[in-house]
Amino acid sequence: VPQPYTLASLLLDFESKKPRALARAISVAESGRGGELIRHLFGRTGRAMTIGLTGPPGVGKSTLSSALVRKARSLGKSVGVISVDPSSPFSHGALLGDRIRLTEHFTDADVFIRSMASRGHLGGVAGATADAVLLMDAYGLDVVMIETVGVGQSEIEIAELANTTVVALQPGSGDSIQVLKAGIMEIADIFVINKADHPMANQLRREIRSMMEMLDFSGWVPELVSTQALSGDGVDELWKAIERHAAWLHATGAIASKRAQAFAHQVRQLALGQLQRKLERELRSGVAAGVDPYAAADRVLTAFNVYSDTEEDFGTPHPRATVKGLT
Amino acid sequence: VPQPYTLASLLLDFESKKPRALARAISVAESGRGGELIRHLFGRTGRAMTIGLTGPPGVGKSTLSSALVRKARSLGKSVGVISVDPSSPFSHGALLGDRIRLTEHFTDADVFIRSMASRGHLGGVAGATADAVLLMDAYGLDVVMIETVGVGQSEIEIAELANTTVVALQPGSGDSIQVLKAGIMEIADIFVINKADHPMANQLRREIRSMMEMLDFSGWVPELVSTQALSGDGVDELWKAIERHAAWLHATGAIASKRAQAFAHQVRQLALGQLQRKLERELRSGVAAGVDPYAAADRVLTAFNVYSDTEEDFGTPHPRATVKGLT
Repeated sequence: VPQPYTLASLLLDFESKKPRALARAISVAESGRGGELIRHLFGRTGRAMTIGLTGPPGVGKSTLSSALVRKARSLGKSVGVISVDPSSPFSHGALLGDRIRLTEHFTDADVFIRSMASRGHLGGVAGATADAVLLMDAYGLDVVMIETVGVGQSEIEIAELANTTVVALQPGSGDSIQVLKAGIMEIADIFVINKADHPMANQLRREIRSMMEMLDFSGWVPELVSTQALSGDGVDELWKAIERHAAWLHATGAIASKRAQAFAHQVRQLALGQLQRKLERELRSGVAAGVDPYAAADRVLTAFNVYSDTEEDFGTPHPRATVKGLT
Repeated sequence: VPQPYTLASLLLDFESKKPRALARAISVAESGRGGELIRHLFGRTGRAMTIGLTGPPGVGKSTLSSALVRKARSLGKSVGVISVDPSSPFSHGALLGDRIRLTEHFTDADVFIRSMASRGHLGGVAGATADAVLLMDAYGLDVVMIETVGVGQSEIEIAELANTTVVALQPGSGDSIQVLKAGIMEIADIFVINKADHPMANQLRREIRSMMEMLDFSGWVPELVSTQALSGDGVDELWKAIERHAAWLHATGAIASKRAQAFAHQVRQLALGQLQRKLERELRSGVAAGVDPYAAADRVLTAFNVYSDTEEDFGTPHPRATVKGLT
């Protein structure tokens, strides 16, 4: 009968690179109790190449991700894959699909695959994912890939955790418009048009280029790569583009601000989670009852040392003063 | 030359039901300076019938909303329509479309149409919309309709503001799956299948019914109405369903918890906006530098009177203690 892990024995196994310890560490983090582990292991992070892979459902993300794992393994790199569940009770099918497609790597000890959900993590899925990235990095995996389903807020958040963000799109699916809507355009370091043999692939390519013209890029200009992940066509080019972006980050020093951004993102998520918990307690306390919403918010905020009359830009004009903009 | 509005003169015109004063009041709220107005007018709210109308792009939401306005007007009710822009710089086309389709009501003094965006409101679009609902209600409009584009988080938030939420779906568009993903299923009081002459309308109807079977409803069970908003077919039935829901809310007293929920939602958004501003200032202050993310979050949180070791459920086990769940 194995002894229950203590923090000390878990750290010991983690440092001896026992995969079971990494799995346990991520489970602990996932359930919101990873703080102590991260405190001990944070000093070992910052080595891994982190890649975010996102795109709408059906784009072939799992196939792409599997092809990238194969490529990285062929170069002798160990790989961690984090597959993010947008915490929908209905998405088990999609996750199962991911798991099945990644099966070819299941027997490879240098490939570590993990589906994430948020069960009780204060920072939600993004918080749990941030912990998992740090843990895989500290464990010594060379490449950490974060694969997210869908196009929306959560993967924009999660992209903040990756050094290189790859956005996969599919021809003939109206993806381009979705991309615009979600503001995902701004987060892509590399665009991949998967299923590039589709008759509408050229149109999608043109659309992406014309959308890119609407944006200002200072520094890195997103690359556009075409793949057919099933056959493997274009995967080498995609990997090269990822390596070029990583090299650019290091050569220009931009990697430091990427890391600072990921750090700030994680701190923000952790702090917001705590603030929201306290806010809900304050709302339930009844302190906000019997007044208008603005007065109620002011009352609630006193518990946080926030006073609206000392906040710049929130002052409303004195009743007798002219209200700006009202002419 | 008109004098600039003061708060006092704006309130005076507002109380004399001058449409220009309502328009100004909403503009002030939209830019985040509506607190003082709401404080003065909150006592007059709670009379309007509030209806949220949401659904994916292309479902014919504007046509539906226009048909509902026509129906309400035929009953002698004054109507406010709030069209919510999900703050995308690219969605002007969609908004223009809404405006054009609602033109038939532009010359009707008892129909007040307003597109919302978030420019500087601390609570974002949802916060500005909450203010606009209160202002239209206080102004004395009988019906306030909140029309939101898309399926995602923002319209789930906005649905919290409406007493009755109508979710419009379109046959043959794969909408049902989107609905599930966004968790919008739980917020619908009424489902509308628009373009009900579509060959796949029956399939969509069956899908919605079988999804509904997966959920537990205590109290109100969502109604399912079929419409062809262009021809007007089914709009009377939709209006009756909305009235049945409103009557049910009042008969059971559920209206009180709906209102409490909308109030809490608005207070939460206002407070969160302030907390996030302060959080960003703390993050920029450098107090979080040089440590791991968890320690950094703890440091940041002291400015909010939040200390993680006094928070229940956040305590991580002592290094020597057994880590729960690690077996």
